[in-house]
Amino acid sequence: MSVTIEPLVGLPEVSGGADLGELVARSHRLDEGDVVVLAQKIVSKAEGRVVRLDELEPSARATDLAGANGDPRHVEALLRESVRIVRTRRALVIAETRHGFVCASAGVDASNAPETGTLVLLPVDPDASARRIRDRLRELTGVSVAVIVSDSFGRPWRQGTTDIAIGVAGLAPLLDLRGTKDASGYELRSTQIAVADELAGAAELVMGKSAGVPGAVIRGYRTDGDGSAAELVMPPERDLFR
Amino acid sequence: MSVTIEPLVGLPEVSGGADLGELVARSHRLDEGDVVVLAQKIVSKAEGRVVRLDELEPSARATDLAGANGDPRHVEALLRESVRIVRTRRALVIAETRHGFVCASAGVDASNAPETGTLVLLPVDPDASARRIRDRLRELTGVSVAVIVSDSFGRPWRQGTTDIAIGVAGLAPLLDLRGTKDASGYELRSTQIAVADELAGAAELVMGKSAGVPGAVIRGYRTDGDGSAAELVMPPERDLFR
Repeated sequence: MSVTIEPLVGLPEVSGGADLGELVARSHRLDEGDVVVLAQKIVSKAEGRVVRLDELEPSARATDLAGANGDPRHVEALLRESVRIVRTRRALVIAETRHGFVCASAGVDASNAPETGTLVLLPVDPDASARRIRDRLRELTGVSVAVIVSDSFGRPWRQGTTDIAIGVAGLAPLLDLRGTKDASGYELRSTQIAVADELAGAAELVMGKSAGVPGAVIRGYRTDGDGSAAELVMPPERDLFR
Repeated sequence: MSVTIEPLVGLPEVSGGADLGELVARSHRLDEGDVVVLAQKIVSKAEGRVVRLDELEPSARATDLAGANGDPRHVEALLRESVRIVRTRRALVIAETRHGFVCASAGVDASNAPETGTLVLLPVDPDASARRIRDRLRELTGVSVAVIVSDSFGRPWRQGTTDIAIGVAGLAPLLDLRGTKDASGYELRSTQIAVADELAGAAELVMGKSAGVPGAVIRGYRTDGDGSAAELVMPPERDLFR
């Protein structure tokens, strides 16, 4: 009944073309039903989703948005990753990515980049990234695990970031309680629990941003179903906060 | 280095005046540094934060907001708990509570209420609730634990709820990384991690809404500092989403 979260340790620094499945399988024994959570940064680096600042030619819009405090090349990179600017304040730009995620800088980040002067972008398709790593782990170990690609996002109205799932394979990201009854027979209204986001946040507890732990393995959580992080994105027509 | 989440099982149904500290201490062995997470619902019930629908006289505003689909008495209850209506759509009202939390129905909930025809309200001061339970646990067991009161909140742009911390005692709810460097010496910009929210979400993974598990004990997470869930509320002047 209990759930255990173990840090993924012993992984090397990775660069484009790294076989993450092999690196995880080699560093950690996996059991059927485990949930492997990998930080977006290591997945993006393995996929070569890195740009050099000095190769970015800022548009007029990027220069305008960057203002006095921001780096127009960084803003140029995030604009290329965005479909919509949601809010701006000074150098902070909150944008919606092509995937439908709303986050600071459209997920474009200079921290933990492979070298100074580079930026790391989100994976093109984090669900596909999760699925590829899952398939590779099954190929190498013979066991079926779930894989989550996680990233740290801020939230409206609340301080601090929490890790959430931007890529999912091998588990249903939403636990659907619609139709189930509580102890007094009342139909539960809070109908769906974003368990993939809770798993990503739980993994963050052992990762520690600057400690070089790029992921975690969660054991004992009864996964079922299959699905994708795309299901976690609120459809625009239901969204009260667009 | 690993973190374990154990469900709190064996607690009875509680009503106003219940001694939650004693019930937890009796059902679970606690060690120094454990994090005890309790669902808001059980804490509210123990504090008698329950109202009867038939004792609520709906105001004109409540009747208007409830529209054709809602119960005006339920809306009356949530209006009394609110300082601001943030969004409405049909019977759904998202409101800001006196504590500064933005959530559906200002946290007023009919599911898992003690009996049909009643509503459960958020604790008046969930940080004080957490601190009382923490003090009582220390008194009874001699060990210092952290206590989190959790609730399931929806989020803009994302499907499903996650559990977050609405009351905290005995740990710093934000892990402050400002000034720390990543592996390449770059100063981390995503500066604060809302670990109390991640701990609440992790606890939810073993709670399961309708299974009668009102909390969890998290072991192996190195807590430090002290603080309150009030620190997790974004100050209005910094809030881009008011």
